[in-house]
Amino acid sequence: MVDECKPARNSLEADVVTLASDASEEAQQQYLQSHADKTIQTILLLVAMEAEATPMVEALGLKADSPPVIPPPAPCHSFSGRHAGANVHVVCFGKCKATGVDNVGTVPAALTTYLAIQAFKPDIVISTGTAGGFRSRGAAIADVFVSTGMVNHDRRIPIPGFDKYGVGAFDAIPTPHLQKALSLKAGVVTSGNSLDYTAEDMARMVQHEAAVKEMEAAAVAWSADLFGCPVFCIKSVTDIVDGERPAQEEFLENLHKAAGALQAVVPQVIEFIAGKRYSEL
Amino acid sequence: MVDECKPARNSLEADVVTLASDASEEAQQQYLQSHADKTIQTILLLVAMEAEATPMVEALGLKADSPPVIPPPAPCHSFSGRHAGANVHVVCFGKCKATGVDNVGTVPAALTTYLAIQAFKPDIVISTGTAGGFRSRGAAIADVFVSTGMVNHDRRIPIPGFDKYGVGAFDAIPTPHLQKALSLKAGVVTSGNSLDYTAEDMARMVQHEAAVKEMEAAAVAWSADLFGCPVFCIKSVTDIVDGERPAQEEFLENLHKAAGALQAVVPQVIEFIAGKRYSEL
Repeated sequence: MVDECKPARNSLEADVVTLASDASEEAQQQYLQSHADKTIQTILLLVAMEAEATPMVEALGLKADSPPVIPPPAPCHSFSGRHAGANVHVVCFGKCKATGVDNVGTVPAALTTYLAIQAFKPDIVISTGTAGGFRSRGAAIADVFVSTGMVNHDRRIPIPGFDKYGVGAFDAIPTPHLQKALSLKAGVVTSGNSLDYTAEDMARMVQHEAAVKEMEAAAVAWSADLFGCPVFCIKSVTDIVDGERPAQEEFLENLHKAAGALQAVVPQVIEFIAGKRYSEL
Repeated sequence: MVDECKPARNSLEADVVTLASDASEEAQQQYLQSHADKTIQTILLLVAMEAEATPMVEALGLKADSPPVIPPPAPCHSFSGRHAGANVHVVCFGKCKATGVDNVGTVPAALTTYLAIQAFKPDIVISTGTAGGFRSRGAAIADVFVSTGMVNHDRRIPIPGFDKYGVGAFDAIPTPHLQKALSLKAGVVTSGNSLDYTAEDMARMVQHEAAVKEMEAAAVAWSADLFGCPVFCIKSVTDIVDGERPAQEEFLENLHKAAGALQAVVPQVIEFIAGKRYSEL
């Protein structure tokens, strides 16, 4: 019934501890070769929360797309404009009808990413927003990280094949020049649908050497991979995952500060990548 | 930026223990009144796994849609035909490119449901497939349950408003006549992205009086709710959640038997609901 079982950029084993494996490097090389001549003209930024999106939209001088480019009933909202010679689109995930809060988590992330790539046909997707950071990986409040890979830490399916699917690991497009140019920290971004974590979640985050914990990136990567669209994350740190305080306390306290850091860095990221080849990132 | 904050069928509080609350009943009544005149002509069944879909497709005499009605790169596959005078579509979630396993879980469920409702414009959505059952709620292997509501048990966001969003509870369309006519058990279906469960998951499943545990229904309900499309689940039991054996052992052992039970019951469900008003279910 379903005959496709192609190799993909989903190159990590469930039990592989580091993303910087030989297999991963080989996949990245193959990937770079297949996209070597492409230059980045259209950039899609995906953001879960309105409080994260607003300063970014203002800093980039984008306008709300009216009428909406992604039609209802999709709850997301898009903002478009030009920056550094590129077409830039910021799409946030909209609000929950019942509660009025932002549609955070992997379900709205996957849907929004799919519909936004359909609508805007970007050359690159950036999952951006605030996140928890691991002190053990060098994270401090308001640091900005670039992802090297994206994984899930709350999808445990202990059946051969399904175990790896559950981890759902994707390599980010390599960005060594971007990291150096903007002095950004880099690491694995791990996604789950809870703001807190269980002991099982933490074991998996440690196993995958996660530097950043948030709620959307792995789902953004999953949808982007369906289109073969390269993806990386830019995440600023609101709370320390391996610290002493509950995430929700630090998150609310530092949301504004971390959003400010994003507001400063995201335009610089766009200025750096616009017009470049994938291999020049 | 986002001004909608309408009341919706998402009527449960994070801390409400039972779905059969007055608030829920009131919401259901309002819902029924607004849809009282509609009759069911087009039925969409969503199924995660090929092994669950195949016997159902055969029992209903459906054909694969070729060319696909839901175009690539969406990984799902659809099957269409007529049964009991209704247009019937079965859509399964397709396979993971990297591992070859079925795209289980909430992320493919939400995307597939959204795209399938766009494509087929159903009068009703049925999330169907196999699941774990709670012995404490009367479940035995190969039992078939109808859902009364759908919740998530692995989305913990302890911030006011976000906590309720995380639970993401939706009422199923009431089906008292269907339950009686086919002698089906009924209860709350709870979704999470793991085949196993943590202590935190179990606490939430008990809190929401879950009868059935699986990996997709709450996400199917979320996407269906965006379109205002009524939804319920038909789930057959492969394993006992509150039993002694690991889910993965029982799941693989009983998958065929439980799929057989679905193959028998799903056509009867379609025969019962086809041409009926929502209020007659």
